[in-house]
Amino acid sequence: MMKVSDLGEFGLIGRIARFLPSPSSDVLVGIGDDVAVLRTSGEEVLLATCDAQVENVHFIRDRIAPYQLGRKTIAINVSDIAAMGGTPAWALVSLALPPDIDVSFVDGLYAGMQEQIGLAGAAIVGGNLSRTQSELVIDLCLLGRADPSRILLRSGARAGDLILVTGVLGDSRAGLEIVLRPELPVSEDARKRLSERHLTPQPRLAEGQALARCGKVHAMVDVSDGLAADMGHICDASGVGAEIHESELPISAACRDAALLAGVDASHWALQGGEDYELLFTAAPGDAGEIRKMLEEETGTRCSVVGKIVGEATGVQIVGSGGEKIAGGSGPGGWDHFAGS
Amino acid sequence: MMKVSDLGEFGLIGRIARFLPSPSSDVLVGIGDDVAVLRTSGEEVLLATCDAQVENVHFIRDRIAPYQLGRKTIAINVSDIAAMGGTPAWALVSLALPPDIDVSFVDGLYAGMQEQIGLAGAAIVGGNLSRTQSELVIDLCLLGRADPSRILLRSGARAGDLILVTGVLGDSRAGLEIVLRPELPVSEDARKRLSERHLTPQPRLAEGQALARCGKVHAMVDVSDGLAADMGHICDASGVGAEIHESELPISAACRDAALLAGVDASHWALQGGEDYELLFTAAPGDAGEIRKMLEEETGTRCSVVGKIVGEATGVQIVGSGGEKIAGGSGPGGWDHFAGS
Repeated sequence: MMKVSDLGEFGLIGRIARFLPSPSSDVLVGIGDDVAVLRTSGEEVLLATCDAQVENVHFIRDRIAPYQLGRKTIAINVSDIAAMGGTPAWALVSLALPPDIDVSFVDGLYAGMQEQIGLAGAAIVGGNLSRTQSELVIDLCLLGRADPSRILLRSGARAGDLILVTGVLGDSRAGLEIVLRPELPVSEDARKRLSERHLTPQPRLAEGQALARCGKVHAMVDVSDGLAADMGHICDASGVGAEIHESELPISAACRDAALLAGVDASHWALQGGEDYELLFTAAPGDAGEIRKMLEEETGTRCSVVGKIVGEATGVQIVGSGGEKIAGGSGPGGWDHFAGS
Repeated sequence: MMKVSDLGEFGLIGRIARFLPSPSSDVLVGIGDDVAVLRTSGEEVLLATCDAQVENVHFIRDRIAPYQLGRKTIAINVSDIAAMGGTPAWALVSLALPPDIDVSFVDGLYAGMQEQIGLAGAAIVGGNLSRTQSELVIDLCLLGRADPSRILLRSGARAGDLILVTGVLGDSRAGLEIVLRPELPVSEDARKRLSERHLTPQPRLAEGQALARCGKVHAMVDVSDGLAADMGHICDASGVGAEIHESELPISAACRDAALLAGVDASHWALQGGEDYELLFTAAPGDAGEIRKMLEEETGTRCSVVGKIVGEATGVQIVGSGGEKIAGGSGPGGWDHFAGS
């Protein structure tokens, strides 16, 4: 008897995908991606994604305010639509609640969801309420629209492409450390910045749309599982490999300080931490400079070159500052729901 | 401090709906209905619904096969699309699993989902996997299409309309009794029929589409919470009242036998039991005969007149066989996720 924890999250997704029949021609992108791309009777394509927040797995009820949890639930789904260059439109909220939960919790949760979905120009249009015995589960299904000629998938990376990422990496993981270990003696500024990055991450919606519009990006994902794991998703879908240069990772001073105090390597948080909700994308070397300039002018957001795509499907190699390969192969770490540790 | 169990499921939905801003013009039907109706760039409207199955609330893991649970999860969502006269198209499956669950459980679940969604002509196109600590939660988001000029809503019932329902009521509740009390000495035929009605209900998809196409139905819902409660949803949305005649309730001989053995009134199961997934609809008295004939000819499914719509918004009145009012007002029973009992 094999347990799902033996197979792992991505092993189980692969097993499910092999089990289901090939999708029909109206399914442009189906199982295995974060977002399904669907052909409707109109000119635009429909985007559909869902992502759940489970109590004691994704959050601890007394370490996040209901308002923050509401914001985060919307933000992580908006980030998936953003990574395709799409526009969020409608959300369905499926809420499974323990019966003894206070109504004020639900009020706070919806206030947060409303705030964040308003920022994305979308609306909550329905959902479902259920009871659970103990653990609260919020599942969100977010629908969006995209221009099919501009949509960005995981599968377009080409050998020789540079790998770019918006913003900085590792702040969210540092924020988690501070939420779990409030006694860590970081500065008040760093505490605020990092815990906000973890508790109310902001999806890169305008950035995703600008990157799709410019027509020069080859492949894109959001960084939710961690840079190394999400780079692996691009490599798998594109049939290529990637080299990530550790010394090029964009890491904030606040994150470096927190990592030092926590006794860990900040690069580890940047590579494996997850929940950054930055955009990770590839483009031809000759276009990278122009893309960086355009993105900063249009959105104020900087991006960094962190590596390059190689032709052999050798997975994701991490290259240390001395040029040594410090990790690699096809199984870099990152968030796996069913992983042992 | 008010608990969600004090407010009840529909109280909480009302509170959430008041909290959110008015939807924009692309949301034709929003919060408060089972299905959102959304305007896309095409000629058809998009339908979106979600419904979860929570372990130990909606099902007990050792009383339903994974295959049956998969079928039921799809069926209950198809039923919501059917009740609008729509066509299911794409499903997203959000699965929260305890890590020690066997992979064969997931295989069985997807086999059942695949079987049932194939019957509806739709496809699973994506989803999400998470871990839970103990309780398994399956949330399904189902998208569909409809012709906006034919769509059937809850809000169209008119005073004088007859109330009709497809098939029979109470079988699913009788099947639940048999699943929970296998020692009940019902006949093998009845045991099979009733437990199948509970464990693998069949949505009335062809019937819903035929009823929408005929253009003579005023309002429609599926019977998921129980006839009385779902009739209440039509009354609330239409601003009317309803009289249901107990003696007209369509109840199978197998259901009557099981109710007798269980020491309960079969009418109670038919009115309050829920999970029948029949279609409940209203039409002008002069059209009812023709609709019944058309439906039986096109789909083989019979339907029954069980009452009439009255002009005063007095809720749902149940009229006994002697003409006496045996229940009524605005709060008939039915399934409430947060109700005390």
